[in-house]
Amino acid sequence: MKKMDCPGFLTAGIASGLKKSGKRDLGLIYSTAPTTVAAMFTRNLVKAAPVLLDQQRTANGSCRAVIVNSGNANCCTGDQGMQDAIHMGRLAAEGLEVDEEDVLVASTGVIGEPLPLEKIESATPELIATLSADGLSGFAEAIMTTDTVPKVVSRSGELSGKTFTVSGVIKGAGMIRPDMATMLCFVMTDIAARPDTLKSMLKSAADRSLNRMTVDGDTSTNDTVLLMANGHAGVEVNGAEEIRKFQTVLDEVLMGLAKWLIQDAEGATKLVEIVVKGAESKPQAHKIADTLANSPLFKTALFGEDANWGRILAAVGRAGVPVDPETIDIFFGSIQMVKRGIGCGKKAEAEATAVLKQDEFTLTVDLNQGSASETVLTCDFSIDYVRINADYRT
Amino acid sequence: MKKMDCPGFLTAGIASGLKKSGKRDLGLIYSTAPTTVAAMFTRNLVKAAPVLLDQQRTANGSCRAVIVNSGNANCCTGDQGMQDAIHMGRLAAEGLEVDEEDVLVASTGVIGEPLPLEKIESATPELIATLSADGLSGFAEAIMTTDTVPKVVSRSGELSGKTFTVSGVIKGAGMIRPDMATMLCFVMTDIAARPDTLKSMLKSAADRSLNRMTVDGDTSTNDTVLLMANGHAGVEVNGAEEIRKFQTVLDEVLMGLAKWLIQDAEGATKLVEIVVKGAESKPQAHKIADTLANSPLFKTALFGEDANWGRILAAVGRAGVPVDPETIDIFFGSIQMVKRGIGCGKKAEAEATAVLKQDEFTLTVDLNQGSASETVLTCDFSIDYVRINADYRT
Repeated sequence: MKKMDCPGFLTAGIASGLKKSGKRDLGLIYSTAPTTVAAMFTRNLVKAAPVLLDQQRTANGSCRAVIVNSGNANCCTGDQGMQDAIHMGRLAAEGLEVDEEDVLVASTGVIGEPLPLEKIESATPELIATLSADGLSGFAEAIMTTDTVPKVVSRSGELSGKTFTVSGVIKGAGMIRPDMATMLCFVMTDIAARPDTLKSMLKSAADRSLNRMTVDGDTSTNDTVLLMANGHAGVEVNGAEEIRKFQTVLDEVLMGLAKWLIQDAEGATKLVEIVVKGAESKPQAHKIADTLANSPLFKTALFGEDANWGRILAAVGRAGVPVDPETIDIFFGSIQMVKRGIGCGKKAEAEATAVLKQDEFTLTVDLNQGSASETVLTCDFSIDYVRINADYRT
Repeated sequence: MKKMDCPGFLTAGIASGLKKSGKRDLGLIYSTAPTTVAAMFTRNLVKAAPVLLDQQRTANGSCRAVIVNSGNANCCTGDQGMQDAIHMGRLAAEGLEVDEEDVLVASTGVIGEPLPLEKIESATPELIATLSADGLSGFAEAIMTTDTVPKVVSRSGELSGKTFTVSGVIKGAGMIRPDMATMLCFVMTDIAARPDTLKSMLKSAADRSLNRMTVDGDTSTNDTVLLMANGHAGVEVNGAEEIRKFQTVLDEVLMGLAKWLIQDAEGATKLVEIVVKGAESKPQAHKIADTLANSPLFKTALFGEDANWGRILAAVGRAGVPVDPETIDIFFGSIQMVKRGIGCGKKAEAEATAVLKQDEFTLTVDLNQGSASETVLTCDFSIDYVRINADYRT
């Protein structure tokens, strides 16, 4: 198996007993050298304690380690929740012998229950002892909630004749919508970069991937994306050309993670790239794509592999954007299903249905009224989505 | 069985072959005297042909009959669709010997398929022949799509010593969200009133009921609400006191229809009245109630009878309204589950879970930051919702 880990980062993932299933639920990332860091957090006004803590601790643009648990979100837990998040960071800091302020904390899982800190406390020595240069897949497992597979994407590039690596880990798999469209995502690289450079590169990559996907339109309270750069590769990203090269690799990693998250979304059986084009402006294209990507009727039709283009037009019509239904074209893959607001008939529908049977395809809505476009990733809405979320806490 | 029909209106509902199942699919309302009419239509920019036609024909505030089919929405059907809607109205007008312009047309069902007009044409003589003073339940059956029961609510009141009646019929059961929150709703009364008086009373009643409910957040292309008044009872509603008395009865009918629609929504097992109070303004309270009422995670938790208050807080936090999570209280029925943003513990949760097991209950979110409140009706999101909508056209 190809090595996915980024040089200079040690990682670990173990079972501490937070998950009733006995699966891995506690993870650690540790950089052997100081790193610069860029961060993005949920825009939900209800923020979990670790999010509030990390907002403070990433303000100076540097960090050394991240400790993460799944099975409990440490959210809506009041002052005790903040004390617990600080304590959790301190456990890692003491074991790693680094400054407490350089340790970030993330949690995911059930909202509103106190964090069982004693389990994390007992497990931290083992967590630190098992840190390794190829621990990333174990770490990825430890941050999973309803995800079915651990998700790691790694790419390398070249700068000034030296190879650099970008390795990202992500977990979903519900309560996902644009801004911010993930629960937890950690990206490590061995380039060096100033925090503000890192930040603008992270934002640019996220705006094409993590901020353009949705599972159910519900924004998490714990969303955290971190990009850490430790300089291990001996190259610094500074000038426009270096930024462009690094950005390409970072974009690939984040888009790979975003697609994988949607593929592995709760109950999902399809990954659909919704392209809205011919709009008067990008925000208008985005609004229509987002309305469609969150429409329960469109998403259940996807699950049923039903080329129900009437539901697509109905969702476009309620998006709050002025459109003329009679100029709209719709394509499933390359098959035109609607021309100027009217269905293209039974033959087109049979061909569109064949496209719908694929695991992954593009749906294009061409408004034919301008030149702006936007793309949003979504999945279908399945019986298993309901089953998973009806029974989540039991 | 109590008579539900409104005096002076004849109604019918028959099977014309539009529904593959052979069930009733063609309905007619005919007033024996001219009526005034008030109308409300979908705000979706994609509007079905009969909606466009009725917008024109209700502009003068009068009508005589409504012909309605289920099984086909006559939407996204282009010029042919408009010709078909006009033709369908003409069939009724000729049979009833009334002016074509006084006949309204409504359609509901699959979007994007041509209306099989020949079936309607063959069936119209029988439809007219079966008009009767107690045909309302048959009419209610004929306008059903995924509804499981025909829905008629009738109430009477007294004005100037004379009894008047308000009888309403509604059909859902998916693609429902506020503004306008129904697909088709026809209300008949035997009072007399000027069109503008009717219109303001209809709007007032709808704003408390039909415009405050949601099944899935998807707005239909065919929503039509008509209130027809034929003066058969020999009383006119004109002055403030008469309006107040009539409004009370009309409100009861529309609220009764709205609640019934949500109870019978696609796959629904629960009717939940979401009350958001303590807001700074009514629009803010409405926005939060609406976000919650459409949150897939909240709605699947309802289906699972899981008092997952964390998801409620998370939905409040993403509603786009400035709120302080630390002042929020949440009640399931009369059970306080969250106090100042924090859960009230296992005992409260056990009691809240007992409330959730009821078929109908109130969920109250008190923001404690002002004095405005709003109420929205919603239902849970069930496995059957997905099943119904994945297989709708097959």
